[in-house]
Amino acid sequence: MSKTYQVIVIGGGPAGLTAGLYCARSGFDVLLIERGVVGGQITYAERVENYPGFPQGISGIELGQLMHQQATSWGLQTLLAEVTSLAPHIPRQIKGDRGWDSLPYHLVNTSEGDFIADSVIIATGSQFHRLGVPGEAELAGKGVSYCATCDGPLFRDKAVAVIGGGDSALTEAIYLSRFASSVKVIHRRSQLRASRILREKARMEPKIDFIWNSVVTKVEGDGVVNQLRLEGTKDDTISVLSVAGVFVAIGLEPNTGYLQGIAPLDEQGYIITNGVMETGVSGILAAGDVRHNSARQAITAAGDGATAAVSVERFLGSR
Amino acid sequence: MSKTYQVIVIGGGPAGLTAGLYCARSGFDVLLIERGVVGGQITYAERVENYPGFPQGISGIELGQLMHQQATSWGLQTLLAEVTSLAPHIPRQIKGDRGWDSLPYHLVNTSEGDFIADSVIIATGSQFHRLGVPGEAELAGKGVSYCATCDGPLFRDKAVAVIGGGDSALTEAIYLSRFASSVKVIHRRSQLRASRILREKARMEPKIDFIWNSVVTKVEGDGVVNQLRLEGTKDDTISVLSVAGVFVAIGLEPNTGYLQGIAPLDEQGYIITNGVMETGVSGILAAGDVRHNSARQAITAAGDGATAAVSVERFLGSR
Repeated sequence: MSKTYQVIVIGGGPAGLTAGLYCARSGFDVLLIERGVVGGQITYAERVENYPGFPQGISGIELGQLMHQQATSWGLQTLLAEVTSLAPHIPRQIKGDRGWDSLPYHLVNTSEGDFIADSVIIATGSQFHRLGVPGEAELAGKGVSYCATCDGPLFRDKAVAVIGGGDSALTEAIYLSRFASSVKVIHRRSQLRASRILREKARMEPKIDFIWNSVVTKVEGDGVVNQLRLEGTKDDTISVLSVAGVFVAIGLEPNTGYLQGIAPLDEQGYIITNGVMETGVSGILAAGDVRHNSARQAITAAGDGATAAVSVERFLGSR
Repeated sequence: MSKTYQVIVIGGGPAGLTAGLYCARSGFDVLLIERGVVGGQITYAERVENYPGFPQGISGIELGQLMHQQATSWGLQTLLAEVTSLAPHIPRQIKGDRGWDSLPYHLVNTSEGDFIADSVIIATGSQFHRLGVPGEAELAGKGVSYCATCDGPLFRDKAVAVIGGGDSALTEAIYLSRFASSVKVIHRRSQLRASRILREKARMEPKIDFIWNSVVTKVEGDGVVNQLRLEGTKDDTISVLSVAGVFVAIGLEPNTGYLQGIAPLDEQGYIITNGVMETGVSGILAAGDVRHNSARQAITAAGDGATAAVSVERFLGSR
């Protein structure tokens, strides 16, 4: 028989860690399952300047560790494993005061065995698409960024590049033009996919230039980014671009592959919730970047996690 | 002519401070207006144990100060004043690249003069009703609490009282019964207003007892709460109840008096928003405890503030 928990939290970023902290502090038997590094996406951030409460900033890894330590001190248990599938609403017979009751539970299948939960909080986040070129992983958080709102102000009066041609690439470029000395948008085609209003805004901004029909083949730098190697997509032109930062904006996707057919997802695969993080499937909640319309910030994810935990408390209290 | 800001944030609790931090860090000209103490409701908390990132806990006053210091270091300006009214959508003629444009602005009237804003983030929170008896204010955060989720775990194996007879009083009592050695619910009538399911749950919980037809006339203690003075509402009975904590659950109300007819409010006066904190009134957003369905935690308010700021950024970028 698999071990049963009152709450299983899937994902150990700020959303999952906060949900775990709240559930554990409320005295629930709660297990958090993380497949990679506790802290989630935030561990890629060299310096987090916009998590309220840390005026000097804090490294993403340290913030994740503090959150985990706090939740653990209240009794949160953590398992490193990959969740492979979730089977909701399996009936269970329980003998209560008024005889046998039937309360559904959820079965969580993982690479380390199966677990049973009265309620599940999904906090598996989303992942930015990577360029997949040499130097990108090594210099992540050291000039390579996937979030202008997070890291833009670090590049005041510096030259930066944005990779991509969609709405998010131009939004990032326009945002970065407030800080950076110049913004080169590198796009592998000769036309943008972005909407007309964003194209016009970007073209009117003197700091923004476009490098068309080009791809980045290598990110270079000694400890921090200092240049990009570019290659033409229409010819063999090879060139070098000096930048202090490169923002990769070629899309992102939610980690919801294991949820097909279980919770309602939007077109891109993000989970749709109401304002208190309920998914519409009884006892299954979602929090953080995995949600439709999330602002994808550590602080918004953490807030979602607490809201989901308060909803779980109400759900378990009403059974 | 009144001074114009791109963003005015009304309210200086975790929601307003986080909105201010995000807007200032994005380079907007932003003013935060607070009528009392920067930090808001959280300054009443002696020890905040559930704000993620502080495993040892932190005093509410200190957390508020850290948040304020962080936002100020990015350029947030703060004004101590009371907002008396808000007049949205006043047209303004602006000469742009394509001639004269008409962009609406919002007029914020305060006890310290009038201000103009392109966008407004409302983060004025809510207030718990007070008993209004001697000792309550002095011992707030020292045994007198208005939030079981926040402070319940501090009273493990201790005797506590809950004041009130509605859904929130019984929800608090049931939650507290997980930690406290005993929970006395003190109600001034002989019948509860709470829903049937909560009444049944409370009656089935052996740790919960009721003290009917009684009101608290004084909270007593030397530094921390140690007893309550009670008086009968049907007769002149006077008694004393030894407790380490008292949870006041006689209702709360949002600070939205100045918003009548401006933003859509629910029956209790809370602001209704969508998932990205938009109120439906162009350029006016809301964040934190002032919102319908808020979980009323520092971390959820802070998350709301960041989401509202990201929405403001999109709004200002689209004008």
